[in-house]
Amino acid sequence: MSGLSAMRQRALHYAARSSAYAKVTDQHLEALRTMLQQPSRDGRKGRLLTDQADTEPFNHDWMKQVEGATPAVLLPTCAEQIADVLRYCQTERLAVVPQGGNTGLVFGSEPVHDELVLSTQLMNAAPVVSRDRMTVEAEAGVVLQQCQEACEKEGLLYPLTMGSRGSAQMGGTVSTNAGGIHFARYGSMHANVLGLEVVTPTGDILNLMSTLRKDNAGYDLKHLFIGSEGTLGVVTRVAVKLSPYPRSKQLCMLWMPDFASVLELYQLAQTHLAEGLSAFEVMDGESLLPSPVAVQPFQRSDNNEAYRTGRNYHAAYFCVMVETNGSNEDHDFEKLGAFIEQMQEKMGDRIPAGFEPVLSQSQTQYQQLWQLREDTPVFLAADGLIYKYDVSFPLDKFYIVVEYVREILYRQLGLNPEEVYVVGYGHFGDGNVHLNVVDRTRSHREALDKALYPTVYKFCAAHGGSISAEHGVGMQKRDYLSFSRSTATIDLMRQLKTTMDPNHILNPYKVLPLVSQQHSLTGNA
Amino acid sequence: MSGLSAMRQRALHYAARSSAYAKVTDQHLEALRTMLQQPSRDGRKGRLLTDQADTEPFNHDWMKQVEGATPAVLLPTCAEQIADVLRYCQTERLAVVPQGGNTGLVFGSEPVHDELVLSTQLMNAAPVVSRDRMTVEAEAGVVLQQCQEACEKEGLLYPLTMGSRGSAQMGGTVSTNAGGIHFARYGSMHANVLGLEVVTPTGDILNLMSTLRKDNAGYDLKHLFIGSEGTLGVVTRVAVKLSPYPRSKQLCMLWMPDFASVLELYQLAQTHLAEGLSAFEVMDGESLLPSPVAVQPFQRSDNNEAYRTGRNYHAAYFCVMVETNGSNEDHDFEKLGAFIEQMQEKMGDRIPAGFEPVLSQSQTQYQQLWQLREDTPVFLAADGLIYKYDVSFPLDKFYIVVEYVREILYRQLGLNPEEVYVVGYGHFGDGNVHLNVVDRTRSHREALDKALYPTVYKFCAAHGGSISAEHGVGMQKRDYLSFSRSTATIDLMRQLKTTMDPNHILNPYKVLPLVSQQHSLTGNA
Repeated sequence: MSGLSAMRQRALHYAARSSAYAKVTDQHLEALRTMLQQPSRDGRKGRLLTDQADTEPFNHDWMKQVEGATPAVLLPTCAEQIADVLRYCQTERLAVVPQGGNTGLVFGSEPVHDELVLSTQLMNAAPVVSRDRMTVEAEAGVVLQQCQEACEKEGLLYPLTMGSRGSAQMGGTVSTNAGGIHFARYGSMHANVLGLEVVTPTGDILNLMSTLRKDNAGYDLKHLFIGSEGTLGVVTRVAVKLSPYPRSKQLCMLWMPDFASVLELYQLAQTHLAEGLSAFEVMDGESLLPSPVAVQPFQRSDNNEAYRTGRNYHAAYFCVMVETNGSNEDHDFEKLGAFIEQMQEKMGDRIPAGFEPVLSQSQTQYQQLWQLREDTPVFLAADGLIYKYDVSFPLDKFYIVVEYVREILYRQLGLNPEEVYVVGYGHFGDGNVHLNVVDRTRSHREALDKALYPTVYKFCAAHGGSISAEHGVGMQKRDYLSFSRSTATIDLMRQLKTTMDPNHILNPYKVLPLVSQQHSLTGNA
Repeated sequence: MSGLSAMRQRALHYAARSSAYAKVTDQHLEALRTMLQQPSRDGRKGRLLTDQADTEPFNHDWMKQVEGATPAVLLPTCAEQIADVLRYCQTERLAVVPQGGNTGLVFGSEPVHDELVLSTQLMNAAPVVSRDRMTVEAEAGVVLQQCQEACEKEGLLYPLTMGSRGSAQMGGTVSTNAGGIHFARYGSMHANVLGLEVVTPTGDILNLMSTLRKDNAGYDLKHLFIGSEGTLGVVTRVAVKLSPYPRSKQLCMLWMPDFASVLELYQLAQTHLAEGLSAFEVMDGESLLPSPVAVQPFQRSDNNEAYRTGRNYHAAYFCVMVETNGSNEDHDFEKLGAFIEQMQEKMGDRIPAGFEPVLSQSQTQYQQLWQLREDTPVFLAADGLIYKYDVSFPLDKFYIVVEYVREILYRQLGLNPEEVYVVGYGHFGDGNVHLNVVDRTRSHREALDKALYPTVYKFCAAHGGSISAEHGVGMQKRDYLSFSRSTATIDLMRQLKTTMDPNHILNPYKVLPLVSQQHSLTGNA
């Protein structure tokens, strides 16, 4: 593999090219170009990109960790073009990777070898919001933020939001069942999607579009395509239910000395904020270390000695963001006031002076506080070579995996916490912890690979957790799926895949563990 | 078919017995009995009923409209017994109908011919409620109300409630994706079920149990079994997420003179009650006619002349129930007060004197008001031969199907509204209208059959509605499925069915339109 980039080499680790797929020829490209030239109903023509300069951005993930070698990127403008393409590719045994905003974190939307990329980015007509029905309908390529803004303009709230909203596309967020910070309040894509248009791997257009809130007419097939990461079909249009846009949005930042206090605080929030609670985010102190703005009750230097000697390596302190969405500002303030008062009464003596709760007093402050949360993964990624795990646990076990990894790194491997640190942050209300390991020296990859894969996923499975909370499986977690799913379950997934995609042309090498080859990946970063 | 009961004859209308299924022999029964005798992990043995007196209640729907001729009822106590049974039945080509509380309305849980009945009623160990995780885990045969009460005891709210809660079982409510009055607030079973244990038609036990809020590890297979009405598997255990039990439950009854006012009222409710709104139920005046307690602003006699002459046959007046669930009674009262004040200001002049809003002042009054809503279908059914349609529309079209049917009956058929009346009530917040036609003389069945099937369903399809909002498809709507679902969609449903149940042994003749025979049913009552 000499001469190949590191990204390319890393991709090749995941799977050898399957000989079941044909190689793309000029004749294929010509046929595909012709299909894309068929104008959509509103007259838009699709495009085919083959110049390497044009295809390059579609060829790798945004973290630049893996890179494929696609011969062409298809940019269709409608479901009919995609149906033609997939019918043809199924017959010709050409592998295809659907791609939305390509903001995923599990290597699910890039080519591994010479798969064709099918990008939805040109399918981005203005979303249609209905105030009466409280719904939005949008094409797959509409950017999440654009959709959120269209809804807000009509006084309605789109249920999903997350850091990548400026790039993530509607089709991709549905295909991956994206989660985000409001999941605890508004639920998953399964709870919010009312209708879909999907092109199946054999080129049928399934019109499952609907703005009906209730519709129990036969199997609810849309759920097959939500979260199956483009392996069972290409989502081309979505209809999602909306809520009234909250007239009152409050945000409170609190510092807790230990995890038991965070759990106690969550119970208080459930009691006092109840229906108003819209997010309960937690960041441990270590996760805020690289942030230039975060004020922290402890500095890392306080703890280094403890880490090194292993006496206190899991000491932690937590920043908690509690958000409420409501319709009456007075009521929401009153509820938050009662919540904070109770917290002070029951836990006040544990809070260090200077770290009392902060309640956002303006829209600007609200945004500033949220920025701290949203910037966390960004600053962490900039601080070194980063290992990201997105896992979930029952609430009471949210933090154990972080402590477990610290134990491995400091006690077993004897690493220096100044060089490699371990953080946990995430959506506490969903039991969704983002475990990150940051190698500031970028020199411990081999040791970390060996120590963490598949140890972390095994640990999740052993403690009732899931190897993927919200990021999906993609290629990155494919070979660990059996830690979270039984053989019978994976067999059924595969049976469904084969039924719907006889030649497995759609998004190959992803989600389902490979059958033909025992995969020997030991890690990635 | 002479000598057969009317119920039996009606069942036979739906499908001829398929010769693909074997006839149950004594040898089969002996083998099945042995399987059920294998004790479950907690030592419970299953049972096999073959005496006609014992099997009779399992043989027909609760409305006593259709009746099968089952040779035996299986009462397993665990998934392992069911797995043995289904593996055997798949090999022996014996047809099996899963049955829960048998409270369905679409003939989905009774045998049609000589299918074996597999009842979950002995699988009813006490539900396990976790306060910390805010979840409940229950076996399939636990009665809904029993589960609700177990949750309430821990200060938690089970998201589903409906009139049949005293009989409906957990497995059945999940298999049919039951809706009910709190759907608008808490969402469908797809939104609330966290985990399932399911036995597949080939006898595999799928352990999809989980109390994790977020779990994106591969295809989310549980959704296949939610709402597929026992045709793809037998649900044996469920885990469901819960909310804090509301400390404040308020109910307001309002009268609206016309449908446009109801729509306007709903917008006001969204604005002023927002996150607190937990139900928005509507009953037209006609639907309250048989109620001995309902006070009504108009009496039927006022309108008879209008109906007969066809001048005013769609005149309607509406009783609206608005419920809020919240955590702070003062706040909820204040919000409801603002809502009612706005209503008075904008619509007060349309409300007849004596029909001002009633806000429940006590738990007793709260229950009395809800009783009015819950008794509505009961009193209607007692008032004559009843035709029930459960359909959904976009909110703004909620009532058009009622007006349309009145037009057919009174203007086209010239029926007398004293003899046959048409009512609409239901879950407005979900666009879910229960259209009922009551033949008080029980003498118009033939004319009504001819006039209404499949006319009503065609009308739904033509106006963006669904032929089934929450009741499912069962046998009753099977042949109308194509009004709500495209050929490609139904084909995929069938493909999935064949993949998972090669001999179609599980719940035959239900949900999917028959292939081998063109079904000529013209109606049922």
